[in-house]
Amino acid sequence: MFEVTTTGSSPLLGNAQQSQLMVIDILRHAVRRHPQQEIVSRRLEGDIHRYQYQHCYQRTCQLAHALTDLDVQPGDRIATLAWNTYRHVELYYAVSGIGAVIHTVNPRLLADQIQWIINDAEASWLFVDLSFVPLLEEFVHQLKTVKGIVVLADPEHQPELARQWLPSYNYEALIQGKPTTFAWPVFPEHTAAMLCYTSGTTGNPKGVLSSHRSIVLHAQAAAGPELLQLDSDVVLMPMVAMYHVGAWGAPYAALLAGSKLVLPGAGMSGADMYELITTEQVTVALGVPTIWLTLHNHLHTQQLTVPSLTRVCVGGAASPLGLVKLYHERYQVYWQPIWGMTETGPLVTSAPPTRELMALPLKQRYAIQTTAGRACFGVDMEIFDSEGQPVPHDGSSSGELKVRGPWITSSYYRRDDPEVFKDGWLATGDIAVIDPHGYMKVIDRKKDLIKSGGEWISSLDIENITSQHPAVNECCVIGVKHPKWDERPLLLIVPNQNTDIRKEEIYQFLEGKIAKWWMPDEVLLVDSLPHTGTGKLIKHELRDKYLNLFME
Amino acid sequence: MFEVTTTGSSPLLGNAQQSQLMVIDILRHAVRRHPQQEIVSRRLEGDIHRYQYQHCYQRTCQLAHALTDLDVQPGDRIATLAWNTYRHVELYYAVSGIGAVIHTVNPRLLADQIQWIINDAEASWLFVDLSFVPLLEEFVHQLKTVKGIVVLADPEHQPELARQWLPSYNYEALIQGKPTTFAWPVFPEHTAAMLCYTSGTTGNPKGVLSSHRSIVLHAQAAAGPELLQLDSDVVLMPMVAMYHVGAWGAPYAALLAGSKLVLPGAGMSGADMYELITTEQVTVALGVPTIWLTLHNHLHTQQLTVPSLTRVCVGGAASPLGLVKLYHERYQVYWQPIWGMTETGPLVTSAPPTRELMALPLKQRYAIQTTAGRACFGVDMEIFDSEGQPVPHDGSSSGELKVRGPWITSSYYRRDDPEVFKDGWLATGDIAVIDPHGYMKVIDRKKDLIKSGGEWISSLDIENITSQHPAVNECCVIGVKHPKWDERPLLLIVPNQNTDIRKEEIYQFLEGKIAKWWMPDEVLLVDSLPHTGTGKLIKHELRDKYLNLFME
Ligand SMILES: Nc1ncnc2c1ncn2[C@@H]1O[C@H](COP(=O)(O)OP(=O)(O)OP(=O)(O)O)[C@@H](O)[C@H]1O
Ligand SMILES: Nc1ncnc2c1ncn2[C@@H]1O[C@H](COP(=O)(O)OP(=O)(O)OP(=O)(O)O)[C@@H](O)[C@H]1O
Ligand SMILES: [Mg+2]
Ligand SMILES: [Mg+2]
Repeated sequence: MFEVTTTGSSPLLGNAQQSQLMVIDILRHAVRRHPQQEIVSRRLEGDIHRYQYQHCYQRTCQLAHALTDLDVQPGDRIATLAWNTYRHVELYYAVSGIGAVIHTVNPRLLADQIQWIINDAEASWLFVDLSFVPLLEEFVHQLKTVKGIVVLADPEHQPELARQWLPSYNYEALIQGKPTTFAWPVFPEHTAAMLCYTSGTTGNPKGVLSSHRSIVLHAQAAAGPELLQLDSDVVLMPMVAMYHVGAWGAPYAALLAGSKLVLPGAGMSGADMYELITTEQVTVALGVPTIWLTLHNHLHTQQLTVPSLTRVCVGGAASPLGLVKLYHERYQVYWQPIWGMTETGPLVTSAPPTRELMALPLKQRYAIQTTAGRACFGVDMEIFDSEGQPVPHDGSSSGELKVRGPWITSSYYRRDDPEVFKDGWLATGDIAVIDPHGYMKVIDRKKDLIKSGGEWISSLDIENITSQHPAVNECCVIGVKHPKWDERPLLLIVPNQNTDIRKEEIYQFLEGKIAKWWMPDEVLLVDSLPHTGTGKLIKHELRDKYLNLFME
Repeated sequence: MFEVTTTGSSPLLGNAQQSQLMVIDILRHAVRRHPQQEIVSRRLEGDIHRYQYQHCYQRTCQLAHALTDLDVQPGDRIATLAWNTYRHVELYYAVSGIGAVIHTVNPRLLADQIQWIINDAEASWLFVDLSFVPLLEEFVHQLKTVKGIVVLADPEHQPELARQWLPSYNYEALIQGKPTTFAWPVFPEHTAAMLCYTSGTTGNPKGVLSSHRSIVLHAQAAAGPELLQLDSDVVLMPMVAMYHVGAWGAPYAALLAGSKLVLPGAGMSGADMYELITTEQVTVALGVPTIWLTLHNHLHTQQLTVPSLTRVCVGGAASPLGLVKLYHERYQVYWQPIWGMTETGPLVTSAPPTRELMALPLKQRYAIQTTAGRACFGVDMEIFDSEGQPVPHDGSSSGELKVRGPWITSSYYRRDDPEVFKDGWLATGDIAVIDPHGYMKVIDRKKDLIKSGGEWISSLDIENITSQHPAVNECCVIGVKHPKWDERPLLLIVPNQNTDIRKEEIYQFLEGKIAKWWMPDEVLLVDSLPHTGTGKLIKHELRDKYLNLFME
């Protein structure tokens, strides 16, 4: 499906108009159909900001004028270091709308990485949120192509930037008084619109350059019934960052569907989330598993519930059964798994709560909720063995997952990686199984699989089971060197606050649930685990730290 | 939105894969995701046929082999004279899948028109349903390019075709034993996939040639929440013909969404519809207003209800308030208006039952249900005055409706019509208003507007009001020549069975509901009104007949 071709000639072409799929048309449609729908943001200034789609459109037009006045040219990369707020949404649409490229940078990366990425992208302007201004100090002198810095703040909050820095501007001052309409240009839909780098979980981040076409097609799929199921009744809160994987396309999909959009700004704590969910009556929220652990920890300690919330859509890492169950039993929230990666738009698979699924016995339903779901229309996926042969969809044979389709990347930005992009497929680096019904489940990352005595052990499987122990808050399994077996699993556990837990209990708990030879050689209780800026476990850091544990 | 361009160059292209949007991928996705979903057909052989998506796919592959064996080439037009059945669905996918063009012909047209259309299209093969075999006699000798005729029937029902005719084949015999997989080719998405002619309501039918891209994008929009709102829980019965406007794209949209598809075959009577709705538990049905009048007439006479049915999606003609109300009050069925034309894919606007709409007072809701709805994402629409200036969206200023977007036609097949295709818009020939919320309403066709003393009278408005009189089954308003006023309205009424109705009652009923000078000069009671093959009033026939009524 959606095979990749070099476009050839054809004996007879259809007579459809030569319309281009353009990102700005999402916003134009949104404001035509739902002018009064709201976008609510927690601002860095501290307050809650609220406006309607129609105001978003007007300010986006003003921003387009401001960008034009700054001499931003088609194809220019415009970098942002910014949280999820309305101003970032305006940047998404205005920058792509004038034919430039919105280049979101992850501010949680190391200053060195940030600097490297902005220089790699050769960004011409940098838009920063108030809270990241101090961060600039660490790398601003090393920026090679940036002409100026625009601070996303009200004029009265504009900080004094050091003189010797680049020229600096205030966002509101720039757009103020500009016309609230704009004559948006039309250009080929394959034009670049957004540049995102990967999480850097397994190494250095890699640049993914999306086109208008890929963003529009992804937005339609994302909003659709096979993925996020958005419509104008949904109140959507993306807890996944717009500075990374475009908040899973939420700023596009939500507006396409007419959903109310609730943007958390820098408020990533359990208390902040709870507040927005409650006051804005959020119905659907997006985020990685750790986010929902954070929310639960808060709700649990404070004895709170979130009755408006019906679904959390969870990707970026595997869905642990413990959390799936907990969210259902305790909060009546449907945990909807998602799989994707920066290179894939990102959304590809999910398991939304169809009538059929909700009619299943709970146990079967949980089993599906801990897969990554089924592929949506538009993307083709397959698993392959090391010889490149497709592996049966029997739910147990595993292979490397490959995907293809109109919003899948065909190469990294300015980086050659032919192994990843062979034969028209994207090799994901994920090892997965697919069952006869099409449900895909990631067994492990290729780099995280533990090779013990010539056989593979899935770290994700052990984590998934461990996470169900009531005393376990978070856990992680890594493979570390072993004199006899090559590698053996090490289990690291962050216990729940104020809980006493003994190693033996964990072993007892795992017994019978995993194969004997999968049993971790050691269980360590730790205070915390390292996460990437997007909330993922950094396993290579742990592997480095514990590498010789079993060798000593 | 979705403006039309000549594709130019661009400073920076995105790195998305060069995937082509292909019609066959809809079926491949359907069978991957919902292998066991059903397609149920009333066959011409007389029985009800039932199979699953997976069987549809297998037979479509077999058919692709059979077509290849018949030496069907990419770009070839394959004509059908066929009802809505599973075999026709197979033809839709297999023909386009191998790169040829499925060319549906309306068998309700005059034999002369049919023959003209097939020759105009230069079709190489003709697939006919059993019931249309007798029709062949009238024109088969005049076919210039057709190499053979394939009868869609079980072998034991295969009719003896006259020797001197073209070579004839049996569909089942052709596909029997062929492999149930097929290596579908990939080709550019702008390749032609389907050729449909317009209804011929206002003159001769005109050919509309769709591409794979336009069909896939239309299918996604059609299945989406702004148009048909399909998902895997929906049981869809298209009462609009696959031989015309592709049954509004239902064979694509339903499979894309995983809906159960119920195909009525030749069963267009109220009793036939009732039977399928009831036995198959149809939830959503598609058709022109007269179809729902037919169904109501049957239900009414037989004192029946249709509890499974939740929505009828109604386009092709304006939605009369009388029927909208009746379907709600009597059957608890939501009448969902749709606007479109063969040239527009066909679906463009609708008013699905959103939570917001259903919360309105009934009167306001009915007012919206008698518009044509709002434009979906993907299509841009505007109304223009005779000078080509856009007209305000105030709900009362009218102008010619123009549309543009990726599934709108840019020219007719082998026919020059520059007036219709100017400046990147399609001029629809419909005169419409758009209200501030974006709801569009067709006032009349340009050709049906009545010009009385220099002012316009909307025939649709008068029909809409008249239709609410309890004694009126169907009605029609046309403009006929008048010595003083140029044209004056004439109202034709088909009364309900066994009802007595007097002209004066109608005048009384209209009083105060329409402007005095709109009052028809004459009301005639008639036994029936002429319809096109797709169930539309043929006004030009009536105009010809009554042209001089007021002149005599
Ligand atoms: N539902 C899921 N189950 C298991 N793993 C998932 C799931 N969804 C996403 N992932 C993991 O997240 C990866 C995609 O993450 P992302 O694009 O943010 O960068 P990353 O792979 O973490 O970083 P990098 O590629 O730079 O090392 C996938 O390849 C997969 O390993
Ligand atoms: N909701 C609606 N309200 C009013 N009219 C409608 C509606 N939907 C469709 N129509 C009418 O149907 C037309 C499209 O019909 P179709 O493409 O089947 O061919 P036709 O216009 O009837 O025939 P031809 O173009 O050959 O004369 C529209 O142009 C419009 O006049
Ligand atoms: Mg990765
Ligand atoms: Mg027409």
